[in-house]
Amino acid sequence: MSDEWLTSLITPEPQTGYQLAIKMSRMGVKYTQPSDEIRKKLRPGYADNADSLIASAQVIAVNFQTVAAANNYWRE
Amino acid sequence: MSDEWLTSLITPEPQTGYQLAIKMSRMGVKYTQPSDEIRKKLRPGYADNADSLIASAQVIAVNFQTVAAANNYWRE
Amino acid sequence: MSDEWLTSLITPEPQTGYQLAIKMSRMGVKYTQPSDEIRKKLRPGYADNADSLIASAQVIAVNFQTVAAANNYWRE
Amino acid sequence: MSDEWLTSLITPEPQTGYQLAIKMSRMGVKYTQPSDEIRKKLRPGYADNADSLIASAQVIAVNFQTVAAANNYWRE
Amino acid sequence: MSDEWLTSLITPEPQTGYQLAIKMSRMGVKYTQPSDEIRKKLRPGYADNADSLIASAQVIAVNFQTVAAANNYWRE
Amino acid sequence: MSDEWLTSLITPEPQTGYQLAIKMSRMGVKYTQPSDEIRKKLRPGYADNADSLIASAQVIAVNFQTVAAANNYWRE
Repeated sequence: MSDEWLTSLITPEPQTGYQLAIKMSRMGVKYTQPSDEIRKKLRPGYADNADSLIASAQVIAVNFQTVAAANNYWRE
Repeated sequence: MSDEWLTSLITPEPQTGYQLAIKMSRMGVKYTQPSDEIRKKLRPGYADNADSLIASAQVIAVNFQTVAAANNYWRE
Repeated sequence: MSDEWLTSLITPEPQTGYQLAIKMSRMGVKYTQPSDEIRKKLRPGYADNADSLIASAQVIAVNFQTVAAANNYWRE
Repeated sequence: MSDEWLTSLITPEPQTGYQLAIKMSRMGVKYTQPSDEIRKKLRPGYADNADSLIASAQVIAVNFQTVAAANNYWRE
Repeated sequence: MSDEWLTSLITPEPQTGYQLAIKMSRMGVKYTQPSDEIRKKLRPGYADNADSLIASAQVIAVNFQTVAAANNYWRE
Repeated sequence: MSDEWLTSLITPEPQTGYQLAIKMSRMGVKYTQPSDEIRKKLRPGYADNADSLIASAQVIAVNFQTVAAANNYWRE
């Protein structure tokens, strides 16, 4: 996690911005639980749980707000 | 999911903006659980659960904030 | 739900804006669970549950942020 | 609830703005559960529950964001 | 609680702003449950519960957004 | 906790801003539960729980919104 993974919030278009928001959301989890092994073990538990999926979508939505504002909403 | 599904945040009016917010919310779930089969299996569980529905409405509300800001709130 | 229900975010004053935020919150639930019958069945379960009510108020608060910004907070 | 209770978001100072945010949060609950009797019955359940209190504080915080922005943060 | 506790959102630097956000978060709880005795009784329950702590941090984060915006992010 | 830990919201680039958001999120927990010992005891409980991890990522996302806005999104 010493890698550079967030050098810019600017993306060419909304969908790449959305993918960046997903990346940011996953990194929030990864910084809190750095073990790849444990995160992998937890995956089935939340990926098969509707409430966890909705909560994940909420985190992505908040991060996408940030990315979209950074890009002036890719207007024009 | 390699498809283009989010080419612009601009919509002609608020209601199409709201529908885009719903789409964005669903894609947040889909990126986290890409299996159509599993998501379909989970659907009855949350669509019949009041708290899950409220949580879904929360995600839509956050995404709609982004879309509405992008469109300058469709003022005039 | 093909009806026009969100033609504008502009309202004459804050309270009608708040009512629009409630409408938007309910539509978020309705798009996720379109069956009137099921939603009616779920109503007692959440309307008598304090945490569900607080979560509902949270969704309304987020939607009201959007409506209030759209109206420049009804300043002057 | 046909009463006028939200005629303006402008308040003379931050603390009255905070009180307005509390009022807005309570009205969000009241519109969802209009029965005074049921809301009164639910009160002990959440007022003695730490997680419900934190969730209530979250709703107030979101509403206060709106009120504070409306008042330009009462700067100078 | 008739005391003046929120006379301004302006603070000299980010950290005092963060402390104000904590104060605002606590007051949100206090307005909902005014009894010092009950709040004190609840404290061990949430201060020893990871999810309650994370939820508390979420409320502080939202309030800090407000305080930071009020101070133009303390950009000299 | 009388230490200076938040002297500025300005960071040279997005990733250091993201790390500041993590720090701010952790301090929100720390101010609520100041005992290092108790927080250490709670750690396995939430770091191995998918929903707690998602909730943590949500707090980081909100704090990152603040840091990103403070830095004008590190544009150009």
